[in-house]
Amino acid sequence: MASLTLRDRFEHAITPAAIKSYIAEFISTFIFVFAATGSAMSSRKMTPESPMVDPSGLVATAIATAFSLSVAVYLAVNISGGHVNPAVTFGMAVGGHISIPMSIFYWTSQMLGSVIACLLLKLMTVSQNVPVHGIPEEMTGFGAAILEGVMTFGLVYTFYAMGDPRRGAFGTIGPLVIGLIAGANVLASGPFTGGSMNPAYSFGSGMVGGSFKNQAVYWIGPLIGAGVASVVYDNVVFPPQSPEDNIRGVTDGIGV
Amino acid sequence: MASLTLRDRFEHAITPAAIKSYIAEFISTFIFVFAATGSAMSSRKMTPESPMVDPSGLVATAIATAFSLSVAVYLAVNISGGHVNPAVTFGMAVGGHISIPMSIFYWTSQMLGSVIACLLLKLMTVSQNVPVHGIPEEMTGFGAAILEGVMTFGLVYTFYAMGDPRRGAFGTIGPLVIGLIAGANVLASGPFTGGSMNPAYSFGSGMVGGSFKNQAVYWIGPLIGAGVASVVYDNVVFPPQSPEDNIRGVTDGIGV
Amino acid sequence: MASLTLRDRFEHAITPAAIKSYIAEFISTFIFVFAATGSAMSSRKMTPESPMVDPSGLVATAIATAFSLSVAVYLAVNISGGHVNPAVTFGMAVGGHISIPMSIFYWTSQMLGSVIACLLLKLMTVSQNVPVHGIPEEMTGFGAAILEGVMTFGLVYTFYAMGDPRRGAFGTIGPLVIGLIAGANVLASGPFTGGSMNPAYSFGSGMVGGSFKNQAVYWIGPLIGAGVASVVYDNVVFPPQSPEDNIRGVTDGIGV
Amino acid sequence: MASLTLRDRFEHAITPAAIKSYIAEFISTFIFVFAATGSAMSSRKMTPESPMVDPSGLVATAIATAFSLSVAVYLAVNISGGHVNPAVTFGMAVGGHISIPMSIFYWTSQMLGSVIACLLLKLMTVSQNVPVHGIPEEMTGFGAAILEGVMTFGLVYTFYAMGDPRRGAFGTIGPLVIGLIAGANVLASGPFTGGSMNPAYSFGSGMVGGSFKNQAVYWIGPLIGAGVASVVYDNVVFPPQSPEDNIRGVTDGIGV
Repeated sequence: MASLTLRDRFEHAITPAAIKSYIAEFISTFIFVFAATGSAMSSRKMTPESPMVDPSGLVATAIATAFSLSVAVYLAVNISGGHVNPAVTFGMAVGGHISIPMSIFYWTSQMLGSVIACLLLKLMTVSQNVPVHGIPEEMTGFGAAILEGVMTFGLVYTFYAMGDPRRGAFGTIGPLVIGLIAGANVLASGPFTGGSMNPAYSFGSGMVGGSFKNQAVYWIGPLIGAGVASVVYDNVVFPPQSPEDNIRGVTDGIGV
Repeated sequence: MASLTLRDRFEHAITPAAIKSYIAEFISTFIFVFAATGSAMSSRKMTPESPMVDPSGLVATAIATAFSLSVAVYLAVNISGGHVNPAVTFGMAVGGHISIPMSIFYWTSQMLGSVIACLLLKLMTVSQNVPVHGIPEEMTGFGAAILEGVMTFGLVYTFYAMGDPRRGAFGTIGPLVIGLIAGANVLASGPFTGGSMNPAYSFGSGMVGGSFKNQAVYWIGPLIGAGVASVVYDNVVFPPQSPEDNIRGVTDGIGV
Repeated sequence: MASLTLRDRFEHAITPAAIKSYIAEFISTFIFVFAATGSAMSSRKMTPESPMVDPSGLVATAIATAFSLSVAVYLAVNISGGHVNPAVTFGMAVGGHISIPMSIFYWTSQMLGSVIACLLLKLMTVSQNVPVHGIPEEMTGFGAAILEGVMTFGLVYTFYAMGDPRRGAFGTIGPLVIGLIAGANVLASGPFTGGSMNPAYSFGSGMVGGSFKNQAVYWIGPLIGAGVASVVYDNVVFPPQSPEDNIRGVTDGIGV
Repeated sequence: MASLTLRDRFEHAITPAAIKSYIAEFISTFIFVFAATGSAMSSRKMTPESPMVDPSGLVATAIATAFSLSVAVYLAVNISGGHVNPAVTFGMAVGGHISIPMSIFYWTSQMLGSVIACLLLKLMTVSQNVPVHGIPEEMTGFGAAILEGVMTFGLVYTFYAMGDPRRGAFGTIGPLVIGLIAGANVLASGPFTGGSMNPAYSFGSGMVGGSFKNQAVYWIGPLIGAGVASVVYDNVVFPPQSPEDNIRGVTDGIGV
């Protein structure tokens, strides 16, 4: 792609196939944010006086996140790659797997899908507030950004692994595995950062919920984590130019 | 199919293969409604004074919905398509993938399966009431129908994606993904609309539970959502007549 | 198989390959009953005064059942068929897919695995009692047997569907789907019958827990449900002799 | 491999492909321990006065374990075999599937990944303690080691089954099944031993949490369980030298 001019890249970004990708990203992000945000609203409505009195509300949000993200990726993976997340798109751009102009359209579609999902939840449920991602008093924004960054590293690393053509038969459960890592991380970080790993998700709930207080945490952490995952995957663990690059590699002798 | 007369279509609807489809829809809808309704009854029996005191009852119903719908679709997908839901059948009819006479038999089988599942639960558990889908006081029927419609859009869109022959290896987890989107949506909407997305399910519990108060919400919303999903999938995201119609499409260059 | 004498059948039942099957059934049933019974003991230990105060204990048992049964079937499916349950073995015998002498060894292996799992849990956890399947006062044994029978029908029907060679690519998630139907049914029936669907499971906990009070419920219901599933699957939905029998071709003789 | 000298084996253990394996083990163990330990910390933060007041905290940890272990195995399975656990590596070494020098590097990578995950959680969440695996007063260390050993037997047996080339299409869900058995066992043993089945996991939380009180339980039990699983799988259930060794074996005639 290095020989393409900026104009070529931009034209590449508005073909009918590209536009289908943006629609797919919009629909999938909508479905994901609707379920993830909606489940947090449901838990709040059921325990209005003490939303965090026991971990069952956290389990509800984690399962909704895992299930809906698996579906969102499944729906879009063969059309747009199933990013559903500006951090994933950023990681793909860092690795040169998507052009900058297309990335911008991806980001726009994802943020739009998230905002509309939150707006619809707020309007239809009448008196309910959309919960905004935030951090507890004793934590610093720096610590929260690192936590979100580490979790997004895991998420984007899993995206790379899913798309690796050397993966063989295990590839078929890829979209499921993306959901599982997100759900596990929500359980690990719920009362600390809320487990977003997704700037579009935090942007939508922040905009409709009316607070951008910790927004930077949910952009800086995930974007850095995604960039690191991209560099690690492409250069350290699976360098495609490596002569012994063979995904069965050493495992033929020793693995399971 | 456009050249078939009504009589041909009706004859097509009573072949032995078609009758097998109706039996498969009946059995699968029975299995799904039995688990989904039964789990709500179990939660109520365990916390009779306050069925909604914390979100663990919601988690129970969401998991029962996800698990049993995955199984129901898995069991019937190679026989009847695994609709298990009049809204899905309606969406398929809108897209011309099933004839009107067959749709009517599908609807009948689904509603019958649902009613019998609820009846059996009521009789065997003796004093327990079958819970009926309903909405809280502050919500309007209009808002509830939109919520149910949006969630059914996601469900039927996923059905279309599962059946897309261009999907490749990811297709094998299709029935599982159908269950996941339903479970995620139950978590998102539990205390608002109950998360039915299925007119047969609401019809069965309404009939055996003795109340059709909000029944229209659970028919109008899902049917419109299913129709929209059908039109969007066949015409916008994956128009089969499109020359560049190729499921890997643009992703060969950019995606994961 | 009709031409085999009883002696041939018995010899068939003690070949090395057959003995491997019994070992596989023993190990898989042990793993399943250990997790299912252990999870009920864990919930009790955490809330000793009120084991059923909210549905989270039910969710724990249902998830343990679903996860461990999926694994148990996965481990044994290519060796013994992965029955892990006398009712499944009975259903297979009714359909002529396993001989009577082998069935007896299957039952023995399954019951032994269950008893040893319960015994080990009781000994290692010291003061804990092994919970025994039972029914609430207001229910009749007849109603409970019907509930267990209906749920076992779904389970055995799913076993037949998993083994159907016409199933194609969806077959790969078969063991997972078996776990899901069991987990969903536990959620539907927890406070009513406990959701056993498995005579060996109820036998092991009954023997180690010291009560056979409702044991008949957990044998009669599941065995009848399994027999009905076998007859329905082989004769109504998928009759192999039917000329138009063509989902993906005709079954290769017997099932699986 | 028997003809290799120690020097050959050591050289084999520092090739670029081998080093990739160690990095893969490090990353995957980090991801697993981060989610499993983080979820226990989340539950504690939400219910500080009574971390065990109901089973929903146990469900949270079990789901985080299942989901994150599935992902961890999925990520590394084609590179290092996806052990993520010194007990699994030990079991593979007992079966001769990995050399001793490589095993030592595997153990080091796994323990390092676990320690860094726990350290990061402790630093970023500020005042939170990392929970250490332990046993209740009434249990003996001997009983706890047996429980952990039995559960690790199941886990390592499943690893062997996943890697069995005779397994066919069901193999694709292998990494998922590894997560499920771990999650089920956490539910079965939570209030008794915590359900570690992984010496690296217990080592990391012990070191960062500041207590090695019951550490021996979490090494001796799992290592013995893993060794037994290795011997049973390779010699009893699936002896590769057996003349009738055919994974379809007897099941062609009788199984599901």
